[in-house]
Amino acid sequence: MGGYIGKILRVNLTEGKISTEPLNMELAKKYLSGRGLAGKMFTDEVASDVDALSPENKIFIAAGALTGTNAPTSGRYVVVTKSPLNGVVASSNSGGQWGAHMKFAGYDMVILEGKADRPVYLSIHDDVVEIKDAAHVWGKDVYATTDTLKKEFGDDKVKVLSIGPAGENLSLISAVMNDLYRAAGRSGVGAVMGSKNVKAILVRGTGKVENANPDVMKTVLSSALGKLRENGVTGQGLPTYGTAVLVNIINESGIYPVKNFQESYDAEADLISGETMTANHLIKKDPCYRCPIACGRYSKWEGGEGAGPEYETVWVFGSNSGIHDFDAIHKANDLCNKLGLDTISVGATIAAGMELVQRGYIKPEELDGTPLEFGNAAGMVEWVRKIGYAEGLGAKMALGSYRLAESYGAPELSMTVKKLEIPAYDPRGVQGQGLQFATSNRGGCHVRGYMISPEILGLPEKLDRTSLEGKATWVKIFQDLTAVIDSLGLCLFSSFALGLSDYAALVNAVTGANYTDEELLACGERIWNNERLHNLRVGYSAAEDTLPKRLIQDPIVDGPSKGQVLKLAELLPKYYAERGWDEAGVPTPECLTKLGM
Amino acid sequence: MGGYIGKILRVNLTEGKISTEPLNMELAKKYLSGRGLAGKMFTDEVASDVDALSPENKIFIAAGALTGTNAPTSGRYVVVTKSPLNGVVASSNSGGQWGAHMKFAGYDMVILEGKADRPVYLSIHDDVVEIKDAAHVWGKDVYATTDTLKKEFGDDKVKVLSIGPAGENLSLISAVMNDLYRAAGRSGVGAVMGSKNVKAILVRGTGKVENANPDVMKTVLSSALGKLRENGVTGQGLPTYGTAVLVNIINESGIYPVKNFQESYDAEADLISGETMTANHLIKKDPCYRCPIACGRYSKWEGGEGAGPEYETVWVFGSNSGIHDFDAIHKANDLCNKLGLDTISVGATIAAGMELVQRGYIKPEELDGTPLEFGNAAGMVEWVRKIGYAEGLGAKMALGSYRLAESYGAPELSMTVKKLEIPAYDPRGVQGQGLQFATSNRGGCHVRGYMISPEILGLPEKLDRTSLEGKATWVKIFQDLTAVIDSLGLCLFSSFALGLSDYAALVNAVTGANYTDEELLACGERIWNNERLHNLRVGYSAAEDTLPKRLIQDPIVDGPSKGQVLKLAELLPKYYAERGWDEAGVPTPECLTKLGM
Repeated sequence: MGGYIGKILRVNLTEGKISTEPLNMELAKKYLSGRGLAGKMFTDEVASDVDALSPENKIFIAAGALTGTNAPTSGRYVVVTKSPLNGVVASSNSGGQWGAHMKFAGYDMVILEGKADRPVYLSIHDDVVEIKDAAHVWGKDVYATTDTLKKEFGDDKVKVLSIGPAGENLSLISAVMNDLYRAAGRSGVGAVMGSKNVKAILVRGTGKVENANPDVMKTVLSSALGKLRENGVTGQGLPTYGTAVLVNIINESGIYPVKNFQESYDAEADLISGETMTANHLIKKDPCYRCPIACGRYSKWEGGEGAGPEYETVWVFGSNSGIHDFDAIHKANDLCNKLGLDTISVGATIAAGMELVQRGYIKPEELDGTPLEFGNAAGMVEWVRKIGYAEGLGAKMALGSYRLAESYGAPELSMTVKKLEIPAYDPRGVQGQGLQFATSNRGGCHVRGYMISPEILGLPEKLDRTSLEGKATWVKIFQDLTAVIDSLGLCLFSSFALGLSDYAALVNAVTGANYTDEELLACGERIWNNERLHNLRVGYSAAEDTLPKRLIQDPIVDGPSKGQVLKLAELLPKYYAERGWDEAGVPTPECLTKLGM
Repeated sequence: MGGYIGKILRVNLTEGKISTEPLNMELAKKYLSGRGLAGKMFTDEVASDVDALSPENKIFIAAGALTGTNAPTSGRYVVVTKSPLNGVVASSNSGGQWGAHMKFAGYDMVILEGKADRPVYLSIHDDVVEIKDAAHVWGKDVYATTDTLKKEFGDDKVKVLSIGPAGENLSLISAVMNDLYRAAGRSGVGAVMGSKNVKAILVRGTGKVENANPDVMKTVLSSALGKLRENGVTGQGLPTYGTAVLVNIINESGIYPVKNFQESYDAEADLISGETMTANHLIKKDPCYRCPIACGRYSKWEGGEGAGPEYETVWVFGSNSGIHDFDAIHKANDLCNKLGLDTISVGATIAAGMELVQRGYIKPEELDGTPLEFGNAAGMVEWVRKIGYAEGLGAKMALGSYRLAESYGAPELSMTVKKLEIPAYDPRGVQGQGLQFATSNRGGCHVRGYMISPEILGLPEKLDRTSLEGKATWVKIFQDLTAVIDSLGLCLFSSFALGLSDYAALVNAVTGANYTDEELLACGERIWNNERLHNLRVGYSAAEDTLPKRLIQDPIVDGPSKGQVLKLAELLPKYYAERGWDEAGVPTPECLTKLGM
């Protein structure tokens, strides 16, 4: 058997009990690994009505079958748990090196259950696994924690995953961080770790991941590397300019949200573009495990250096907050990494706060003297810090923009779907992406089906972004394919260049499986439906497959997409039908039977 | 002024005196910076007859005018000193991050003169410069030294340059290492640092390098990045497979030396190719400062992980030693980095040792039980260690292959030019490269004029490698252009995609200079002639512009280039004429006058 290790590490924190168990390979056939398999185990093991921050919730930290192999972009792992932000199956994945090293240590998955009676961290050195006291790092930021625990471990090859103060403070927009700068960012997964009193997980693996067909793999790998190299996005745009290469592209399409989505075009966007970052801030590329793309940036800014911001981060702390100070954007990004926060949700919550101030909901006296207004860069950076440490109004903002806006009686000012903040694409100007935001199982998320790829970038083919034709089909396929990619432990960015057949070739070569393209995509569909069933159980219905009023009712006010609206009412029934769901968005028995669920 | 800082740090170790002085901008106009300017200052300040390992020798550690700017591949610095291996102007350059940070700290150059009365290291934190005691790290390897001194400095953003035990032991093939894995490798520069009792130099710079024309630079940068991306070597081969992409290419041309150049083709080369490394060892890319190419590899091997070997290293510990054990090659490479050794010279010395054993010169009883024979991988790795620590026969091998072979009365078995080991290209099958090896100012070196680029890779145009036509002209231009690239602080690999006009555009945009293409290339020619004049002063003559007998007299015995010989006697007079030198290879007064020397 290749790819899979075949072993799970289960840690009962309440009892301090560590055990291992074999991976259920029957389940793995149907749900692959990573997001899919961990999601299925989560829905099987955790009752849908448990409180996300209670000991009854569990955390499944899972690598993919391809994680840690020689497949390109195979550095990803996922954190699956019940989201404290919105109750969905949180499955936030992250790159860097940690996930591959969990496999090298001999595990496909680590499951955390119960709750420790004091702050602890988990130390995994191959088959030596220990629960250790973390009192001395509790309260410390991610950088200091990483440094301290690495020294304590005594081998600087150890990889560290940890939460920051935000996770300890149970911020609902807190992240799980690894390798200093990489985030399993969304859905508040950091708070779940915090609620269990787990500060960090160290892995040092000296083993390797087997490959079932090394000779076949050499050919498959060479083909995949060639496609990634020759593709304009993975071979040119991302390597040269990082993900912020999108700033100018998205802005020029007029779907670049400004000031909490009040506008959709920024005449000054180039001040904070990927091109400008490359000219003024880049120190070096900082690639994830086995990534030929290397979009990760290591940058320099006024007074500091470290990870450079991603596109979404640049946007959210930049134009969406009315800010063009690139140093301040770098600082805000660095603070999020340091404190263990999701940049998108933090920035969007600050922008919502700015609009709440603008419209008089938040009163000046609530701000403790820290400006919260569009365009104020220093204030923005300070609010990031306050959110991380839950200081003053920051404590409320640490619960995300929906709860913030709702507490002022203005939930419509929160640009969220299912309470999760929507990323940097105005859905009114890009119909498929709009439908995807509305139906994404985890809420306002771009990486569950990145329709920007066909609708803006023209990959794998160019679609008319204003047309509804075929979009329901595209969204379904993209969502299912993404579930496959996530579940294999690969990076979604590989899909700009690779297609279903490439992924089938990779998983078959590495694991020795024999998936046809259709069977593999059916795994993705199964994973999607499993997540959907969970959402229905926790109380979501078709009514929540929607977007904020602003993005449904009001036409875009400016720029190249001026006047456009999202025609969600027309798209949604087509999507349900495409999925084999009934009119209420519930999977039909036929659909589930077909998928063997 | 952009690019240049305008300040030199001079450290007199004998007196413990630290001073700064302005950079001589008049000299910089003619000799640029880095290799060129430091080389000129070296020949001005250090008498040609000083012993390289005496306190009278000086070390000039110099960044280029573009080092630390936003120019692509601008991470390089150079170590200029008199070579203890062969008396030439050693000017070994290295990438990584250290050089850029020396600029950030506020210096174009650090000059070390005299000799400390005890082991010391230099700590540079912007304008706070201290000579510190290094007794506790003397004897330690590069990794331990880096770790210890970083902790001592108390800021993990500090960059460390150091020597290993090999430099302390005055090995004539020892390197200066920086950022753990990057080497100013050749000509024994590590021993000169060792002779001065300087273990390490730490830099922490918080400043930045100014840019004279940021707007112009944005356009120039975008153009250069585009060319680097679209070029087959810098945009495809090197990023995907690292420099070891050359293994199959060079082998298939039949100029891939095997067993100390006894053969020139290896039927099993693919076992240790870049493609195989990528399939079996790569963990991630590890790019230098501002490098869009990112050929650096971070790899995994049996029992370890760290920097992956370069092409020359793979070859020298691989086919040139009759070895195809890729784990062993990785281990030998790692040991060289750890002990501070030049991989090419170490591997070539071991291979020469293997031939000396094969032919009965070295007796079994001299080996202390460690096998020294073609194909013995474990023995090879152990000999690397013995060379680093100067143990047994390793002490003699630490002086390089020429002194080793010469001590057994068989200097013809040392594959060197001017005592420096020749890299991985059989000159008999590639005439221009052969001429370049013979005339390179520092001896058997491929990176003073990489004729493989036109003669094998077809860049910037494809030349017939067996033809003599035009080769003297090409070699001259390549040598001069390389001197320009080195002296600006850029990586030679950029020249697969960029040409003279691109470099002129970059230096003019950054520094505000107005070099025409011709003026810039004349700087390169001036630098070349300055180095040549030094060689003549220390006693070299046309008689040493040659290659080992094996590579001149004997035709290639096997493979695609079978039967070929290097026609050096025909090439050399043309080259001298092309350079404006007399028949004895001495620059004529007209030549020097034309160059303003």
